[in-house]
Amino acid sequence: MHDRAPSTNLSDTERLNRLRLIRSDNIGPRTFSALLRLCGDAATALERLPELARRGGATRAGRICGEEDARAELGACKKLGINLVAPGEAFYPPRLAMIDDAPPLLSVRGTQDALMRPMIAIVGSRNASGAGLKFAQVLAHDLSAAGFVIISGLARGIDQAAHRASLSCGTVAVLAGGHDRIYPPEHEDLLLAILQTGAAISEMPLGHVARAHDFPRRNRLISGASLGIVVVEAAQRSGSLITARMANEQGREVFAVPGSPIDPRAAGANDLIKQGATLVTDATDIINAVQPIMARPMALEEHDDEYTEADPGAGERARIVALLGPVPILLDDLIRMSGASPTIVRTVLLELELAGRLERQGGGMVSLI
Amino acid sequence: MHDRAPSTNLSDTERLNRLRLIRSDNIGPRTFSALLRLCGDAATALERLPELARRGGATRAGRICGEEDARAELGACKKLGINLVAPGEAFYPPRLAMIDDAPPLLSVRGTQDALMRPMIAIVGSRNASGAGLKFAQVLAHDLSAAGFVIISGLARGIDQAAHRASLSCGTVAVLAGGHDRIYPPEHEDLLLAILQTGAAISEMPLGHVARAHDFPRRNRLISGASLGIVVVEAAQRSGSLITARMANEQGREVFAVPGSPIDPRAAGANDLIKQGATLVTDATDIINAVQPIMARPMALEEHDDEYTEADPGAGERARIVALLGPVPILLDDLIRMSGASPTIVRTVLLELELAGRLERQGGGMVSLI
Repeated sequence: MHDRAPSTNLSDTERLNRLRLIRSDNIGPRTFSALLRLCGDAATALERLPELARRGGATRAGRICGEEDARAELGACKKLGINLVAPGEAFYPPRLAMIDDAPPLLSVRGTQDALMRPMIAIVGSRNASGAGLKFAQVLAHDLSAAGFVIISGLARGIDQAAHRASLSCGTVAVLAGGHDRIYPPEHEDLLLAILQTGAAISEMPLGHVARAHDFPRRNRLISGASLGIVVVEAAQRSGSLITARMANEQGREVFAVPGSPIDPRAAGANDLIKQGATLVTDATDIINAVQPIMARPMALEEHDDEYTEADPGAGERARIVALLGPVPILLDDLIRMSGASPTIVRTVLLELELAGRLERQGGGMVSLI
Repeated sequence: MHDRAPSTNLSDTERLNRLRLIRSDNIGPRTFSALLRLCGDAATALERLPELARRGGATRAGRICGEEDARAELGACKKLGINLVAPGEAFYPPRLAMIDDAPPLLSVRGTQDALMRPMIAIVGSRNASGAGLKFAQVLAHDLSAAGFVIISGLARGIDQAAHRASLSCGTVAVLAGGHDRIYPPEHEDLLLAILQTGAAISEMPLGHVARAHDFPRRNRLISGASLGIVVVEAAQRSGSLITARMANEQGREVFAVPGSPIDPRAAGANDLIKQGATLVTDATDIINAVQPIMARPMALEEHDDEYTEADPGAGERARIVALLGPVPILLDDLIRMSGASPTIVRTVLLELELAGRLERQGGGMVSLI
């Protein structure tokens, strides 16, 4: 089964320019997407970057990734058999393309067909119990046999158990660092086995060593690419619960495996069930829940925020900036309170972002840094 | 806290006659209740029994419990400190009086005040895991400390753990046999400890040794007397699941304690959660759920089925009997299909019951034996 047919095919130049753009300072996936909609293509966006950042009050110019650096990265990727693909292109997981902060370019490696099949994420604690590991294996095996690709984070504990049990049908590992900086190092062999039948994906450049904050960021790709995520064992305040929260925000199904209240490793999953996650004791619980979702046509990402050309006056810009502060505010509230047009407000925010002065939270919230 | 003030007080004669009536052949709680509504009091019902049974087609008269036997039972009860109480009387658990097959007389023994306080049932498997037993103890202790009486079945495993952990505040054991035939025998000491601060109840006569089919019958009292039941560990197709089903039918809350899908002892409780039972990891989960129920005035049992005097003609009786068979049929359907008045249909059914020819299932279903 395939999730959706690809619809896009970038030119070499556009791919190179998009890589330069996403590797430049102050540009995350959301800013990238806003810039592309404002400028039409990556070359124009790169040209206009300095001017937009200056208007946003940048005191010194952010670094723009040079053409040489981008060519070097593409070359290094090619040597490792890594493709850089954009949303809508072949081997870009179709559901991942739907999230509002989808990576503009995803580094994909291995047997890339696996990335086009429907995925279920299995995540859980690194120090799982024997019962937890065993159940992750059974579940991964059964879902895999039913045609689903298991996607996880290559971590110790539940993640590796899920990958290993689904190796024969293809499984997908999402990396928090670059493809050449595998974490944990003892899973390099596992990764090589995964690449034989499945794939590894990352939004980070080669050479990037994952730091603590890269893991929650990475987790949005695990949930985003999948129909739903299964939390097998998770203590309270664990990374798996962050993935579950992201899955919820992305409209993905959340499944959780129950455990004894006496066992602290079950606390997180039990809490998820209390909050409405589907209790799972069997692969069929998951298959039954995702089948109706697979039957629905996949909704393409909708951009209600227009980025047509607009030139905010100095007074308007000052009024909008004055309304912002370190406390996050809803974009819609900002538009209402400023009295400016949505187009003007969005342009000012984009300028501020490029100047490194604005942070976008989930749920349409923005704050000054 | 008290559940409800008692409102009834039987005369000695009425109590004696009611005991005779419920100890007579072919009279279960539902037939008892129908007879009492038809005849007004137990003496009249006893008088009319032979005639009603004959009209129902009894080939030989069912045994009617004699006055001597009933006096003997009352005397033996008195020696053991057992009271026989009717729904609405002091020490008859108020919520138990609300179920449609409430025992017409309940044998109560011990510190009977406990029977008037709000109860939570804790039930589970006899061969529970260490984690299950530990959790039952913690839960029973915490609910008990919060003012709830723990009610259970005195069985090995979860039941005894729940009783023991709530001994200091009073706990209620529901027996499947007579008060002098404790099962399992090794729990006689536990029962004596329970009677110090709590109580034991039974609907069976002294001397009755519980047989297999008495346990599910007893379980309806555990669920019926309580605000809700907690299933701690239960394999599939276990007695605890029968109690949960009865709790559902009686409109009681059903709580279940999750466990690993790898552990077969958790399968029943996990299934209950899938079917809508509230997942419990903590006493507060239960307290929060039952508090709004306690705040509502308790609904008195409503009898929409009238038993005013009616004399079915031979033709009408034959038509109703012809519609009945071994496959259960809804009373409402029977009324509609027979074309007879509800009063006539109910009278014919009562006659058939007394003749030992009719069985009443839950949910208003009846069948011929």
